[in-house]
Amino acid sequence: MIQTVAFIGLGAMGYRMAAHLPKHFDTVYVWNRSFEKAEQHATEYGTQAIDLHQAVQADIIFSCLPTSQDVKQLIDSLNIKAGAIWIDCTSGVPAAAKELAMSLKQKDIEFLDAPVSGQTIGAENATLTIMVGGDAAVFDRALPAMQTFGKLIKHVGDSGAGFAVKAVNNMLLAVNLWSVAEGFTTLKAHGVNLNQALECINASSGKSGVTETALPARILNRSFPLTFALPLLAKDTGIALDLVNEAKLPAPLLALTQSLIQAANLTAEPDSDFSAAVKMYEAWTKIILE
Amino acid sequence: MIQTVAFIGLGAMGYRMAAHLPKHFDTVYVWNRSFEKAEQHATEYGTQAIDLHQAVQADIIFSCLPTSQDVKQLIDSLNIKAGAIWIDCTSGVPAAAKELAMSLKQKDIEFLDAPVSGQTIGAENATLTIMVGGDAAVFDRALPAMQTFGKLIKHVGDSGAGFAVKAVNNMLLAVNLWSVAEGFTTLKAHGVNLNQALECINASSGKSGVTETALPARILNRSFPLTFALPLLAKDTGIALDLVNEAKLPAPLLALTQSLIQAANLTAEPDSDFSAAVKMYEAWTKIILE
Amino acid sequence: MIQTVAFIGLGAMGYRMAAHLPKHFDTVYVWNRSFEKAEQHATEYGTQAIDLHQAVQADIIFSCLPTSQDVKQLIDSLNIKAGAIWIDCTSGVPAAAKELAMSLKQKDIEFLDAPVSGQTIGAENATLTIMVGGDAAVFDRALPAMQTFGKLIKHVGDSGAGFAVKAVNNMLLAVNLWSVAEGFTTLKAHGVNLNQALECINASSGKSGVTETALPARILNRSFPLTFALPLLAKDTGIALDLVNEAKLPAPLLALTQSLIQAANLTAEPDSDFSAAVKMYEAWTKIILE
Amino acid sequence: MIQTVAFIGLGAMGYRMAAHLPKHFDTVYVWNRSFEKAEQHATEYGTQAIDLHQAVQADIIFSCLPTSQDVKQLIDSLNIKAGAIWIDCTSGVPAAAKELAMSLKQKDIEFLDAPVSGQTIGAENATLTIMVGGDAAVFDRALPAMQTFGKLIKHVGDSGAGFAVKAVNNMLLAVNLWSVAEGFTTLKAHGVNLNQALECINASSGKSGVTETALPARILNRSFPLTFALPLLAKDTGIALDLVNEAKLPAPLLALTQSLIQAANLTAEPDSDFSAAVKMYEAWTKIILE
Repeated sequence: MIQTVAFIGLGAMGYRMAAHLPKHFDTVYVWNRSFEKAEQHATEYGTQAIDLHQAVQADIIFSCLPTSQDVKQLIDSLNIKAGAIWIDCTSGVPAAAKELAMSLKQKDIEFLDAPVSGQTIGAENATLTIMVGGDAAVFDRALPAMQTFGKLIKHVGDSGAGFAVKAVNNMLLAVNLWSVAEGFTTLKAHGVNLNQALECINASSGKSGVTETALPARILNRSFPLTFALPLLAKDTGIALDLVNEAKLPAPLLALTQSLIQAANLTAEPDSDFSAAVKMYEAWTKIILE
Repeated sequence: MIQTVAFIGLGAMGYRMAAHLPKHFDTVYVWNRSFEKAEQHATEYGTQAIDLHQAVQADIIFSCLPTSQDVKQLIDSLNIKAGAIWIDCTSGVPAAAKELAMSLKQKDIEFLDAPVSGQTIGAENATLTIMVGGDAAVFDRALPAMQTFGKLIKHVGDSGAGFAVKAVNNMLLAVNLWSVAEGFTTLKAHGVNLNQALECINASSGKSGVTETALPARILNRSFPLTFALPLLAKDTGIALDLVNEAKLPAPLLALTQSLIQAANLTAEPDSDFSAAVKMYEAWTKIILE
Repeated sequence: MIQTVAFIGLGAMGYRMAAHLPKHFDTVYVWNRSFEKAEQHATEYGTQAIDLHQAVQADIIFSCLPTSQDVKQLIDSLNIKAGAIWIDCTSGVPAAAKELAMSLKQKDIEFLDAPVSGQTIGAENATLTIMVGGDAAVFDRALPAMQTFGKLIKHVGDSGAGFAVKAVNNMLLAVNLWSVAEGFTTLKAHGVNLNQALECINASSGKSGVTETALPARILNRSFPLTFALPLLAKDTGIALDLVNEAKLPAPLLALTQSLIQAANLTAEPDSDFSAAVKMYEAWTKIILE
Repeated sequence: MIQTVAFIGLGAMGYRMAAHLPKHFDTVYVWNRSFEKAEQHATEYGTQAIDLHQAVQADIIFSCLPTSQDVKQLIDSLNIKAGAIWIDCTSGVPAAAKELAMSLKQKDIEFLDAPVSGQTIGAENATLTIMVGGDAAVFDRALPAMQTFGKLIKHVGDSGAGFAVKAVNNMLLAVNLWSVAEGFTTLKAHGVNLNQALECINASSGKSGVTETALPARILNRSFPLTFALPLLAKDTGIALDLVNEAKLPAPLLALTQSLIQAANLTAEPDSDFSAAVKMYEAWTKIILE
């Protein structure tokens, strides 16, 4: 029986995800490096802002941090309750998930890699997609806790599989983003009406999440709202490419995309949204996607 | 006032598109190189199978042929009625559309490039998307005829713009197809459950027409139904890349994709569906996407 | 018997190439758009600066202009002597060579595409390499004239073949340039001594004209001397890629290189040497190749 | 003072490299997994075939094995003499060199990464190029031993730098190989005489080690002699790309090349020479480079 639940890492996503837990669990601990955020969460949602060492005495511990390295450092410094399940919602590294799962297992602690997608709006509405790697039985036990903020929740394989799916998803996002930039710039260079073209493509076989959402809502309107930072996309495409290389696979399109996103990230202004990667391409072509 | 309409080229698409015309026009001519197909269409739908030279005396003449070259050869050999509008639904070459529009104009004939998307099912249900290039006033006059089989019908720019949008759409389809093959092969190499991963990605930012349709309905089920031939996709990516080069743009992702599709086409079995392009990648990796 | 020879286009290369002709021929006409350059050449080398229409009454007419289009415009405006041989040393377009050869042939004028390599120093020392396309018998007749400034002179095929070899050579130069930039930047990022590394690679299997010459003499010393302009390299890689596309070949590396060089050219400062293409890469990585 | 020298790993390269040692040192130990090869070497060159544990009591220990992993396993299993210098001529992994250097240092043993280039002929003639990473003072002490079979011997940086230079060299070889295949196939498709074209390019800016050596001596003559195996090239391009990724650099051309070489390796016949990578390209284009 899950009695107490903890949520570690109250960033833009975590803050909203943790907000759903008190509706389903009596005791919900929250912790954040900037502790006032935890206190604010407690005030707002009835959670308990608590010392980190106490937080990890919960039955279920969620984490949502920038990188797998952050998670590992935290875990290495803590005495987690035996029998607990640690559910890591970070967009992390599959190899790190495997390592953590194995080392925690020896202390009778279970680990699931459970990255989410759906952005802050999905976190708010509890409609996130969660792709979960780890032991199937542990997945079943942890499901009720994940259902508090997730809608589509899938067990995609062993430890690391969740992170792998997230990394590949974000790599495909990057491929779509960059290729759409090239394609629509080409259309603009030939005098085509981009908005009409977009409507047609969104009703055709070339559509993607980028043509349906990012292109109209972030790029063509020149808003580039910072909701998913470009350095994080570059990190995720890097994780995906590491998977390619570990498997000794050729993957020309993914490798090229990673180089382009990496270059875009290195040349971007600070605090750029992922969609601002197209600005490097615009700098090449002197054609603005608007 | 549109009195008579002709439809030239009764392939898998054209046959179904022309079937809607008699519901809206009294006189509908049809013609096809293999003439028995035209006669069969007449029997089935109440159109008139007619000599090509008579067909082009209609007010509106649709064509739907394999390539722009086929259309040009046909037009060069005919005395088309002055005042007619020729609507070319071929997936053609923008430069050819510009040329034809200009040369026909001198004979008082209008030309619209109006490629369609939506496949045979869309042709059957009259729900095709039509992306139209040419004069805006001519577009308005031709709209009722196009509405007989189209649903989303957009004027995307001057002559050639329709073909350009179609070519870029199909290029994006090709990018998505190949990158999805690389991404899902990587997941499979790491032991991920592809069907569960697909559900997650289809609810996430990396989704595309390929993950939603082609991957489950053509590839993972190993059906590769021949509804859009790989050589035609290779032709279309070539048209898109020509647009890139004419505009002297850099487009690394599109250029690489065109090379890969070209190679896949050169090494494919005869009568391969476009989705079978992934088989070249499978031959590299020895991993089957199923 | 060759009696009179003309040289049209006295740029950095042509000026030096034409200087050798008076040593071997009694009558040498020179012409240049900025005519004072022709007059200066006459003074300096004993050639005759002459009206263009008279120049093309020579037995052998050399041209060395920026592009094939320049050559075509010139030829279209002139009445060339029947029986003459026009030797075009421009780095031109193979298809243009085929067209010119065919149309001039009807006026009993022969055309050879004969681009050169070896830079200004090779032109000065009469050690240029000349790759010649056209009729073999015409090549033999023209050989003595080409030997005045060429050393290695090869008949590489029919009309256009010379331009094709030059374009592919320059494409390979571009590939080598960009890949060396990526490779040496990687070494520098890992703290490797670039000069020592360069010596090793120049004694190993990875060497190229770029590692032997361009890297030490243009890039690592930060001189980037303008002897072969970046826009011309971008033009030549474009010609090479057109050859790829005409043959419907896949060529992923060449296509990617062309995109990168195109982007580098679009973002370069005016009057950039070809070697300055690496500056775009340096702008990405913030690592300077020095 | 160097008194005794050992050489571990008598493959095609090592066998020939070790043959020069007895000319300069009184006591030369040799060892090989298939020990009869060591005994044959002793008979042929006056070295001493000896037990591995005794061999590592030498002052200088050379190793030349397939991979860094092989070297590490060996070293981990041995009690090497304190004060010895281990010179690893394997084409290895920079990170492994750093690790080994650091761990051996604690036992007062020095480690240099010293990969060679120049092939078996260079090993035979003692004209190898050696690119050395590690401590500069140790390099100086080890130089006389390396000079027995090396000609150009350079200290290129700290531990790992030697391996890095070798990996980048081989990556450039791969880039040149594949781009030359694309370029010459394009020329052949246009009817150009490849041998004449090759002569021109070898006298021009696009030349490389591949056009000067591999193309004429391995590919165009269809010999593909197995002297440097394709799987080893694929391993080395992988090492180079790992360097790129560790430094978080974009490197589109290197990344694409690695994918192509990887694919060529996966689809090649067993025991393929590196030059046979072009056969995958030939299978795409149906054009044979001969």
